[in-house]
Amino acid sequence: MTTPSDPILLTPGPLTTSARTKEAMLRDWGSWDSDFNQITGRLREQILRIVHGEATHECVPLQGSGTFSVEAAIGTLVPRDGHVLVPINGAYCQRIAKICGYLNRRLSTYEYTESEQIRAADIDRLLKEDPSITHVALVHCETGTGVLNPLDEIAQVVARHGRGLIIDAMSSFGAIEIDARTTPFDALIAASGKCLEGVPGMGFVIARRTVLEQCAGNSHSLAMDLYDQWVYMRKTTQWRFTPPTHVVVALDTALQQYWEEGGLAARGGRYARNCQALIDGMAELGLNTFLDHAVQAPIIVTFHAPDDPNYDFKTFYQEVKRRGYIIYPGKLTQIETFRIGCIGHFGEAGIPGAVAAIREALTSMGVQLGRTATVA
Amino acid sequence: MTTPSDPILLTPGPLTTSARTKEAMLRDWGSWDSDFNQITGRLREQILRIVHGEATHECVPLQGSGTFSVEAAIGTLVPRDGHVLVPINGAYCQRIAKICGYLNRRLSTYEYTESEQIRAADIDRLLKEDPSITHVALVHCETGTGVLNPLDEIAQVVARHGRGLIIDAMSSFGAIEIDARTTPFDALIAASGKCLEGVPGMGFVIARRTVLEQCAGNSHSLAMDLYDQWVYMRKTTQWRFTPPTHVVVALDTALQQYWEEGGLAARGGRYARNCQALIDGMAELGLNTFLDHAVQAPIIVTFHAPDDPNYDFKTFYQEVKRRGYIIYPGKLTQIETFRIGCIGHFGEAGIPGAVAAIREALTSMGVQLGRTATVA
Repeated sequence: MTTPSDPILLTPGPLTTSARTKEAMLRDWGSWDSDFNQITGRLREQILRIVHGEATHECVPLQGSGTFSVEAAIGTLVPRDGHVLVPINGAYCQRIAKICGYLNRRLSTYEYTESEQIRAADIDRLLKEDPSITHVALVHCETGTGVLNPLDEIAQVVARHGRGLIIDAMSSFGAIEIDARTTPFDALIAASGKCLEGVPGMGFVIARRTVLEQCAGNSHSLAMDLYDQWVYMRKTTQWRFTPPTHVVVALDTALQQYWEEGGLAARGGRYARNCQALIDGMAELGLNTFLDHAVQAPIIVTFHAPDDPNYDFKTFYQEVKRRGYIIYPGKLTQIETFRIGCIGHFGEAGIPGAVAAIREALTSMGVQLGRTATVA
Repeated sequence: MTTPSDPILLTPGPLTTSARTKEAMLRDWGSWDSDFNQITGRLREQILRIVHGEATHECVPLQGSGTFSVEAAIGTLVPRDGHVLVPINGAYCQRIAKICGYLNRRLSTYEYTESEQIRAADIDRLLKEDPSITHVALVHCETGTGVLNPLDEIAQVVARHGRGLIIDAMSSFGAIEIDARTTPFDALIAASGKCLEGVPGMGFVIARRTVLEQCAGNSHSLAMDLYDQWVYMRKTTQWRFTPPTHVVVALDTALQQYWEEGGLAARGGRYARNCQALIDGMAELGLNTFLDHAVQAPIIVTFHAPDDPNYDFKTFYQEVKRRGYIIYPGKLTQIETFRIGCIGHFGEAGIPGAVAAIREALTSMGVQLGRTATVA
């Protein structure tokens, strides 16, 4: 049902979904009905299977955007007298720190520049220095820039210190390998509208069962109490409060396509090819990535804006959109950038088409190709 | 796209939506894109228009189910040292009391039986007796049973005492008249998947502008901070966190149909006719309403279960479902009941068809028609 006027979304979620996923929303479901609750059940099982967490973890879905699930995980898993260490190398790490502030959880931060990875050695030292830290909250792929943080290394360090690890895997889940059998974590959070290629409207938390069992009474919020959601769902197979039924069924259909495609290896491989084609194609236009290749996740890429007085992002955005592609603004304050996502349901022609559209857009603006701004 | 196998939902949301509303979800939208943000803007305007609140109030939409918006309204509008009076005549009133507990807001309750309306005279007396009460939180239509509470009378009393009124109008908004010009309130909460006949996945709060302006720093939650959501949306036209794009666009399309149908008078009139046809048809089967006619809202009706050893709800539900209708369990603990909704997009044949299905279902179960249980 994608018409020629429907642009391809090169954004980090919402993203372009398949026609089949959208068509799954052409039916209404009773949220109390067993047919619907079976869908919820198999969706929870499949999400666990992606991280091989069936034996150790529970998947608790939650209404709202991914941020609702991140807040719910912090609020439910971190006791009121807990102490959270948030290493920060971008906007989504900062958001977790902000959540800790709202929730009155004791907070320590450790800052990196936005082009750096978080380092396991720093976490090791910080946990050694401060035994009062109970949890580390880590963003796996920092969507603000596109940095991939070394999750497994950090997870081993946190486990060795006997602290809890909470992972915001919003934009990596389903495309970048995370194995609960070898990478220890208390909770991992993602959402429907990212690499699983569903539509936005729900998130989920994969929580260690033995931890979740201890979490009664922690939450600051009824709606976001994951313990209460889990207990009720286990007892009744239903959601506590009205689920976004169409979003749930779309995610179920998207998961069927995920397995048909070949699961994580195929999904991640496709995104990695998209990412490489994007970086190569943009380099030919003289547009360079903000990040070093070594720390770049194959999810979203930040590019320096052209160093040309004729360039401005708003016009650029509209010109690219007129050619059928939606791109994303940069999130850096010091440097003029823009971002392009590598994820979503579009064919192999998607990225070359986008690069061609960007070339045409810049040419139409009178921007000379081949010069890149580094400082605004 | 409703196939013969798609049952009609006679539930209080999610409910049956039109094909046109569902087909609006066959497109993906960038949440940063101006086309999408225009939809958010006109949706907020239209919701205000339904209660004639354009001059005095603001509509702040929020991700999640309606309960998320109720919690957000309490958390954002009631200061941390506020004191909330919750008159209780059913399950949704109790939920508000539970939210106040989670949020550590001082709480007073006043209990009625589930078949009674809340009385304005009681509220008057309670507010007179306790000047520390800052807010009254009232459920307009108590969906647990279907009681319509006398909103305007109570609103006048609360205003006369200079306290704030927060209205959970989840299942009445858009079908039962509420006029912000004559019925004073600080906040009114509803959701996409009720009488506006959208799909579930977002709620909204209609908040008095002069009150909302004073609410910075009240909220217990980042995700549910309506003040922050409002300020950001006013500045950027965007949602702070990923919106449920497909749900938003479905609600926009549902609102177009709402006005085409004739707005509140037509929508409410249709539901009232459904309700009367339902009560009359069920009476012919000897199935009586739990509530007196005088307090019954035309939204959802609670019926006494048949007084017959062959009756059990699970079998009844499945037999009615096989015939194309999804009904709803009762929510009373002392009395065996079931509920049938009068709301949603189905034609004039919907209710007579449901009554016929119920007759056939009971007959197939060997339940003798004409006898009603009053006590379990």
